Amino acid sequence: MLGKTYERENCSAARTLEQVGERWSLLIVRDALFRGRRRFVDFQRSLGLATNVLTARLDAFVAAGIMERGTYSSHEDHYEYLLTDKGRDLAPVVIALTAWGDRWGAPNGPPIVYRHTGCGGQVPAAMVCGRCDQTVQVESIETQPGPGAGTGTAAAGRGKSRGRRQPRAAAQSRPTRASRR
Amino acid sequence: MLGKTYERENCSAARTLEQVGERWSLLIVRDALFRGRRRFVDFQRSLGLATNVLTARLDAFVAAGIMERGTYSSHEDHYEYLLTDKGRDLAPVVIALTAWGDRWGAPNGPPIVYRHTGCGGQVPAAMVCGRCDQTVQVESIETQPGPGAGTGTAAAGRGKSRGRRQPRAAAQSRPTRASRR
Repeated sequence: MLGKTYERENCSAARTLEQVGERWSLLIVRDALFRGRRRFVDFQRSLGLATNVLTARLDAFVAAGIMERGTYSSHEDHYEYLLTDKGRDLAPVVIALTAWGDRWGAPNGPPIVYRHTGCGGQVPAAMVCGRCDQTVQVESIETQPGPGAGTGTAAAGRGKSRGRRQPRAAAQSRPTRASRR
Repeated sequence: MLGKTYERENCSAARTLEQVGERWSLLIVRDALFRGRRRFVDFQRSLGLATNVLTARLDAFVAAGIMERGTYSSHEDHYEYLLTDKGRDLAPVVIALTAWGDRWGAPNGPPIVYRHTGCGGQVPAAMVCGRCDQTVQVESIETQPGPGAGTGTAAAGRGKSRGRRQPRAAAQSRPTRASRR
């Protein structure tokens, strides 16, 4: 999709944007994840997209293994589009985009809240350390070359604090964690 | 930036994409967050962007309050661009994009790993419940109208499981959590 645009980037964020960085792509994923959309006409009604644009996005998702195409009726042109595991794994991206928009672009408050089924708690996009299991602030993140490093990879660095206030998300209170579900 | 494109969407993810959804926008934020880039020429060298494209992106970031423009020398045209709190708060978005690309688009392994300073643990983008503090799988997320709901807001729904395997991120082992940093 944006392959040629980010060609010289050896970066996983860039590779993700190559597959889901086109306009409307992540909103199509959002609709599939959280609004139960499957059929072409449902996506089209929900998003108000031109047929050619929606066709291009869905075809690209199928080609990339993000969605699978099935048929929901005997009319072979009545396709439905289902997220694969690869597609469903984009949920943290959608949630992170939503959390930022809620904080910085929702003057009337969040239009939608994501809640943990059963418990009812709100689902934010916390950054949690895989080793010590603490919530991580951006000032406490360093980058290092990984096994796939090579030409075009970022030099090691860190999120510098520069004495600024902590990002609001990181500054929010977070109680002691319980066991994982 | 994409305001007119997503105009009818009352959705925080769409509002975020309006501000950072243009090509290169999130990679500029990545470079500012984790590669220490500040000066126009540094972003340009790092990303290989045309001057007019980079100018448009940085100007839009300043207009949106995502970056602040300062001068780093006596030449008034030598600007540096510093992320504001609003801009730094995009870190979870960049990390979530990176985590997905690492899992699904890095055949040689991650080019870069994000590590928690000191502890050295890898920083993933876990979805954690704000109430019960458990790691949340996409199947356990419901959406509800929030205070900013109105025309164009998604109907309530949930991430349906359809009996598929759990997304790999959610299926990863996560030990009991310690206190927050």
